[in-house]
Amino acid sequence: MRATVMFGAGDVRIETVPDARVIEPTDALVAVSRACVCGSDLWPYKSMEHSDTGLIMGHEAIGVVESVGADVRTVKAGDLVVMPFAYSDGACAFCREGLHTSCFHGGFFGTAEVAGAQAEAVRVPQADGTLFVLPVGKDDALTASLLTLSDVMGTGHHAAVAARVSPGKTVAVVGDGAVGLCGVIAARRLGAEQIIILGRHADRISLAREFGATDVVSERGDEAVERVRELTGGFGAHSVLECVGTEQATLTAISIARPGGAVGRVGVPHYETIPASEPAFYNNVTVGGGPAPVRAYIEELLPDVLEGRIKPGRVFDRVVGLDGVPDGYRAMNEREALKVMVEP
Amino acid sequence: MRATVMFGAGDVRIETVPDARVIEPTDALVAVSRACVCGSDLWPYKSMEHSDTGLIMGHEAIGVVESVGADVRTVKAGDLVVMPFAYSDGACAFCREGLHTSCFHGGFFGTAEVAGAQAEAVRVPQADGTLFVLPVGKDDALTASLLTLSDVMGTGHHAAVAARVSPGKTVAVVGDGAVGLCGVIAARRLGAEQIIILGRHADRISLAREFGATDVVSERGDEAVERVRELTGGFGAHSVLECVGTEQATLTAISIARPGGAVGRVGVPHYETIPASEPAFYNNVTVGGGPAPVRAYIEELLPDVLEGRIKPGRVFDRVVGLDGVPDGYRAMNEREALKVMVEP
Repeated sequence: MRATVMFGAGDVRIETVPDARVIEPTDALVAVSRACVCGSDLWPYKSMEHSDTGLIMGHEAIGVVESVGADVRTVKAGDLVVMPFAYSDGACAFCREGLHTSCFHGGFFGTAEVAGAQAEAVRVPQADGTLFVLPVGKDDALTASLLTLSDVMGTGHHAAVAARVSPGKTVAVVGDGAVGLCGVIAARRLGAEQIIILGRHADRISLAREFGATDVVSERGDEAVERVRELTGGFGAHSVLECVGTEQATLTAISIARPGGAVGRVGVPHYETIPASEPAFYNNVTVGGGPAPVRAYIEELLPDVLEGRIKPGRVFDRVVGLDGVPDGYRAMNEREALKVMVEP
Repeated sequence: MRATVMFGAGDVRIETVPDARVIEPTDALVAVSRACVCGSDLWPYKSMEHSDTGLIMGHEAIGVVESVGADVRTVKAGDLVVMPFAYSDGACAFCREGLHTSCFHGGFFGTAEVAGAQAEAVRVPQADGTLFVLPVGKDDALTASLLTLSDVMGTGHHAAVAARVSPGKTVAVVGDGAVGLCGVIAARRLGAEQIIILGRHADRISLAREFGATDVVSERGDEAVERVRELTGGFGAHSVLECVGTEQATLTAISIARPGGAVGRVGVPHYETIPASEPAFYNNVTVGGGPAPVRAYIEELLPDVLEGRIKPGRVFDRVVGLDGVPDGYRAMNEREALKVMVEP
């Protein structure tokens, strides 16, 4: 089959690889209907050391189940499914608590162990726990938004949950990438009154406003902190969604939180440390978040997608076939594209 | 009047200083009945650079109001009061939210601006907001426990709140100092099922067990992490109270938290940074806490003190007059005393 293989920084190729297949009795084989390129794929795209074998990329997909292993009970051939970026058994203590990203038998797609979904097909471990069977048909107009439930919308929602967004709160979203934009949707959906987006790309800001952002801060660093304070009566934001993953963004996020407020981090940290004292400790600012248990959120978010109340699929601004994936990486990396959808 | 003045590391003296008096119309003058030495006083005791003027120390006290400024309404001469370690107006947005340590007009005792309470008397700014009038008389057998409401018991409670302790939870308390011991009381009081204390002083551990600790871990570093995992079925603790303030203690606290769990930090951070990724981010561990708004907690904790359900005053194992304060610092610093009460 054909799949996207990353061999090193900037080196993404479409290769013929051995067909994905059921290996464990708990596996499912899924034909990929739609996949996408994630902001987190850009980190190895910038920095991965050369590998002769490469890595089959992609951790977000919807697709149709082709076959299942002997022990799979709740998923069957022909089902249209969402594949969350992490696989999980759905049965362990953490899964039962809704923290599927800490599943005892879980792991991540697009790794050396489990190949990714920017491919014609993907092997899904722990299929019963991992896959969410959609109650709608393929080719539905909702496809793009349903695809976001595999990662980006669930991740934006997780940032909002970790930042304790609730009705009437003042929220700041650091980052105008696809996760940040989904964070705006999530904050609005959870009842935030004021939603400040920190970003500087006109088209993304425009979409953020359509999603519910009430204010825009295009400054950075100390100036951004100052501006958020002005916009919040000197207080700072109750809830801050950190959707970038850099040291600067994280420091800004903590600095613009209101004393007693909370920061929800979902940007994969590409920094070593967080300051211990100022401003988090002395302001009693809570820092939470991590990899989003998106499997846990699909049930909550799905009705809003199906009924059109949220349209996270609007973050996709480019659609490519497999052959277009390498250029899709380039375009996202150069911020020419916001988020690329893949039709294998 | 006589007061405790610190002139530098290890240099604590009892000096005659100008009498404390009402300066602002919102001040009260309080004759100190009992004060104490705080673990946080030991940080400058270890490291303060020499100062010719010195610092009048102490931020925990109960006392009797001697006089009040013209604008003070709710506190009057003769009232027996608890003085929390931070002063606050009780009226600003943060005070109304219960975060008195972020009061717009607040500050801390024992600073260059506002003298401390290890003295015959203390000037209390924002008296209406700061002081809590006790419904009991002086010389009551409850004095020691009431005194802890000025800091140490409220701080242990804050750690437990920040660590999201609730009924049935598994809790770990890092540190067997007076705050850690009060953290055990708080965790028990909030319904924790298992309470693991990390410490290695026999007498303190013994008191921790009386306060409700169910398990003891005397190892440190990686061995402590391993031991806590064993005691929690491999999971880690839902709630971790960090009651020390060193880098090692904080890293241990984050490392022994269960994925999805929370760390409540109340030890004043004497370290620069917290690791950004492992283990907090990938385990979705929330890190919260800061200076405890003890003023907000007095009302909640007082009934349990008055009715003898909690006895945090047991953390005091030495009582000194003012002349004994310098030796009290030495004894606490050398861990010969757990916590020293001062009768000026």
